[in-house]
Amino acid sequence: MVRDNLNLLRKKMRENDISYFITADADPHMSEYVGGHYKVRTYLSGFTGSNGTLLVGLKDAYLWTDGRYFVQAADELKGSTIGLMKMGQRDVPTIVSYLDKNLKKGDKIFFNGNLISISKGQALEEVAAKHNGQIIYDSELFDDILNKLWTERPEDSAKEIYTLPSKVHGENTIKKLQRVRKHLEEKDADYIFISKLDDQMWLFNIRGGDIECNPVAYSYTLIGKNKAYICLKDASLSDKLIKYFEKNAVSIISYNKLSSLIKKAKGKLLLDKDGTSYGVYKRLEENCQIIFEHNITEDYKAVKNSLEIENIKGCYLRDSLVLTRFIKYIKENATKKHITETEAADMLDNMRRGIEDFIDLSFPTISAFGPNAAMMHYEAVKGSDAKLSTGGLYLVDSGGQYLSGTTDVTRTIILGKIHAKTKMHYTKVAVGMLRLMNAKFLYGCSGRNLDILARGPLWDIGIDYKCGTGHGIGYILNVHEGPQNIRPFRRAGEYEAKLEEGMVISDEPGVYIAGQYGIRIENAILCKKLEQNSDGQFMGFDTLTLVPIDLDGIDTKYMNDDDLAMLNAYHKLVFNSLKPYMKGEELRWLKNATRNIRKFSKFNKEI
Amino acid sequence: MVRDNLNLLRKKMRENDISYFITADADPHMSEYVGGHYKVRTYLSGFTGSNGTLLVGLKDAYLWTDGRYFVQAADELKGSTIGLMKMGQRDVPTIVSYLDKNLKKGDKIFFNGNLISISKGQALEEVAAKHNGQIIYDSELFDDILNKLWTERPEDSAKEIYTLPSKVHGENTIKKLQRVRKHLEEKDADYIFISKLDDQMWLFNIRGGDIECNPVAYSYTLIGKNKAYICLKDASLSDKLIKYFEKNAVSIISYNKLSSLIKKAKGKLLLDKDGTSYGVYKRLEENCQIIFEHNITEDYKAVKNSLEIENIKGCYLRDSLVLTRFIKYIKENATKKHITETEAADMLDNMRRGIEDFIDLSFPTISAFGPNAAMMHYEAVKGSDAKLSTGGLYLVDSGGQYLSGTTDVTRTIILGKIHAKTKMHYTKVAVGMLRLMNAKFLYGCSGRNLDILARGPLWDIGIDYKCGTGHGIGYILNVHEGPQNIRPFRRAGEYEAKLEEGMVISDEPGVYIAGQYGIRIENAILCKKLEQNSDGQFMGFDTLTLVPIDLDGIDTKYMNDDDLAMLNAYHKLVFNSLKPYMKGEELRWLKNATRNIRKFSKFNKEI
Repeated sequence: MVRDNLNLLRKKMRENDISYFITADADPHMSEYVGGHYKVRTYLSGFTGSNGTLLVGLKDAYLWTDGRYFVQAADELKGSTIGLMKMGQRDVPTIVSYLDKNLKKGDKIFFNGNLISISKGQALEEVAAKHNGQIIYDSELFDDILNKLWTERPEDSAKEIYTLPSKVHGENTIKKLQRVRKHLEEKDADYIFISKLDDQMWLFNIRGGDIECNPVAYSYTLIGKNKAYICLKDASLSDKLIKYFEKNAVSIISYNKLSSLIKKAKGKLLLDKDGTSYGVYKRLEENCQIIFEHNITEDYKAVKNSLEIENIKGCYLRDSLVLTRFIKYIKENATKKHITETEAADMLDNMRRGIEDFIDLSFPTISAFGPNAAMMHYEAVKGSDAKLSTGGLYLVDSGGQYLSGTTDVTRTIILGKIHAKTKMHYTKVAVGMLRLMNAKFLYGCSGRNLDILARGPLWDIGIDYKCGTGHGIGYILNVHEGPQNIRPFRRAGEYEAKLEEGMVISDEPGVYIAGQYGIRIENAILCKKLEQNSDGQFMGFDTLTLVPIDLDGIDTKYMNDDDLAMLNAYHKLVFNSLKPYMKGEELRWLKNATRNIRKFSKFNKEI
Repeated sequence: MVRDNLNLLRKKMRENDISYFITADADPHMSEYVGGHYKVRTYLSGFTGSNGTLLVGLKDAYLWTDGRYFVQAADELKGSTIGLMKMGQRDVPTIVSYLDKNLKKGDKIFFNGNLISISKGQALEEVAAKHNGQIIYDSELFDDILNKLWTERPEDSAKEIYTLPSKVHGENTIKKLQRVRKHLEEKDADYIFISKLDDQMWLFNIRGGDIECNPVAYSYTLIGKNKAYICLKDASLSDKLIKYFEKNAVSIISYNKLSSLIKKAKGKLLLDKDGTSYGVYKRLEENCQIIFEHNITEDYKAVKNSLEIENIKGCYLRDSLVLTRFIKYIKENATKKHITETEAADMLDNMRRGIEDFIDLSFPTISAFGPNAAMMHYEAVKGSDAKLSTGGLYLVDSGGQYLSGTTDVTRTIILGKIHAKTKMHYTKVAVGMLRLMNAKFLYGCSGRNLDILARGPLWDIGIDYKCGTGHGIGYILNVHEGPQNIRPFRRAGEYEAKLEEGMVISDEPGVYIAGQYGIRIENAILCKKLEQNSDGQFMGFDTLTLVPIDLDGIDTKYMNDDDLAMLNAYHKLVFNSLKPYMKGEELRWLKNATRNIRKFSKFNKEI
């Protein structure tokens, strides 16, 4: 199938005098996860990961993806003519540097301007100009070509939008708009144009259902000093919602009349280079003086208010309880009963659905046994999925959307006996997670300062996981959100957010041995202020996740005494937190799963 | 005296219609340490630290300095009308943001364009323009005003320049010039103009003596694809040197004919924004198309070649032996004999002078007892200096310039009994130093990734030292060199160098309690490659410094078992390295000073 797709595509490329065709699975809002309608790269290449860009030349084709997907992409591209470009690896060019090497005078690069960020569009524009080439970013031509190839392309979604009650959001839209307008004043700007869906959901205290697991609605927002407009799909509107926006003095424009919204923007306009499409930018540029700036709403959204934090804490407690019960079931039954990866996932998903304020999963549950877990974002498929069995590791990365928050948690469960080396890997992952969770640092640090705390124990044994250590987590919103993250490296010019009190972030080091196993232990942690003194404001984290770490994977030989104290303190907290909800045999199991462990020494068996 | 200076200065300012006068201790080469002729800020303010900028308004005056000098500056500014601006502290404005708040329409900001970097000059230019003000950067007017105030201003230096033998430099100038020219080609540039003195010394394998402790000669260099020019002071030239440059096809121009050199630059010119003066830039700009780029020579210079590394290792061994002997003397005599800070420094300096290839100190020895050590860059003055006595900490930060390298080392020595809290601070500093020294990390890291290893143990107890953890160290050159460093934070747009094999860097966490004591333990470490595998190239450090850490300051309660193992391993290395040069009582002392220590436990006194 894949080969046919590319042949047909190349025919269209030749007809239109196109040398290179570039596409990702991207939507007009620069969403990380997109609806089926926008999964163009998946359709053309067969690679299903969340991040990947396909470049099709007249002869060669390549797919760029990041470390989370190296194993999966190699697997899914097997049998195709598409080469894999492992992003960030030594000697692997970026798309732009690939084009820089290969472009010939007059070459035309074609992409859909509405499905690529300003930053990326400008980079392609520059490299094309450098070689006396040209870019074509016409979205109509793109759809024209696509629809001929992809006859069963799904329709775009337009689910009904709902508003959040005040006991859920903690800050009304009027106040949020005031903050944005104050920012406009400070920046001496007239308007801000927002394309990012989660930023708009936060701003208006609304939620939708247009992208699986992401409770967002397709929308564009323009806010001026006195006026505010939002583009929404007609089908997603209710009378209640129309009144709600009226009350908040926000005018609704039909989503397919984006041009009307664009025409209203005038003067100095704030625009996010990575959160807005190149196509929209080119149209806004005609009437406005663009000031590029990271969306201020993203910064506001990332810092949870006290009501949100209270809700999140309760949410994580309920979610942790469910996951702990699931782990107990798996530990006790996986090697006795026949349980497959999808059966296990279904079971956990159903348990989550039983939580009172459940809305949706926050992403499709990653339920991976043995070698499958070496693929960071593996998705098991019924029928071809593995059976959980003894002597292996079972990784489960999962979470839910609740009316009280969004969860994301990973545990790796030991089934039967495992090798000493696997235990070393497991222990080092646990140690990394605990060291970051217990970090104390001066205000001003970003995730770059802290990454080595989680990753260092693995670097010490010559292992690196090819992904970040942590990402921001939304509140009843996307499971991945910015601006904060925990990563060691950064692109030149990339926005680097300081860690602020109230940010929720994941802490998830791992070890991935292709063909063997994957280990990931992930807690969600909440950034908080510690003491302030003459040396400055100190910061730390509270753990939100309260789920035992499997002690069957721990070998204390690979922990120092501080690490051991952190593990025991964490397990004590888990026990005390979950205890009120358990009794009898279940409580006894929890007590054992969170028991205090000690180090062995040659002088004294247990000290 | 200070008040008179400012009054006279303000009179001149009014005469010339100047609203703000800005000066640092700076030379035309953006040197960190400058000759007496250029210590304008020291003269005007009385503050003697190496980093500080004075802003004099018609009514107010402020001095900006960094964390190393907060205590010292407060002390030295006492009795003056100059306010202290503590850089990097919350709510303390930068000079530019201070001006942004205070500038009035038409205000004129005056500085010497030759004594300020392009970056800083442009920032002042921008803030002036924003408020419809103006900058004046005329260096003649500056000298005219200065010379009237400062009647005993020292002359500029012009010491004789010497060349390094090949067994010392390891790479001749022809080859170094080839590397620079290859870079010009890669960047499609015609010329590079270099003002930084140490970069030029490295490039031409020459050394001078124009700045105390920095073996550099005043110079400017212009390199084109085929031609190379150097501006040197006539008095610093010997016949031998003239022939040497002839042989290397480098034309010498008189230092006071900088204009002739500037005229030779044409076409596309590489220029370092932070390593070139604003004044020179404005003149170069007239004929050239400027491409701003960090000096490539700084990157080349920072990576020591194998011969340099071999020499450096021997150099540090000899230097460590001398410091260890000094420490033994101090430990045994300080509380018995009357020894003052300057006497101790003189003794150590004389011991260093006895090393075969000694050239100079690498900076004035910091010899500080008790509260004086809380000033990071304290300089004791004969007569008013403190006496070493029991129950205190003695900090000695020192180093030498040798024909085999440049050393920089700090030890803090415990005299008599100290408080439990002091021991905690001492132990945490030692732990921080050891953790960074033993770091293992993936290639691609900069000092930002690693800083927390050294600083974290202090953050854990709510302490921050207000300076970087480490700086690059030159080879028979400046004791501070770039581009690498170990720091937690960075200015926007600041060049951030990856840590490369062959870089030498200091590792010097500390605790500074104003009015009480200062603790700093500093090793010089050499970056090296460790294993390379499919996860990437791993990197680590070798220690160059081989001097015992005073065990009288260590309380194992504040170390985990990994820390303890690192300390013992380091002391074993120190013992084995110095052992061949000691015998009898001295060797016994070393053995005890580097003895293996163990942790106490409640179960088992010593395990």
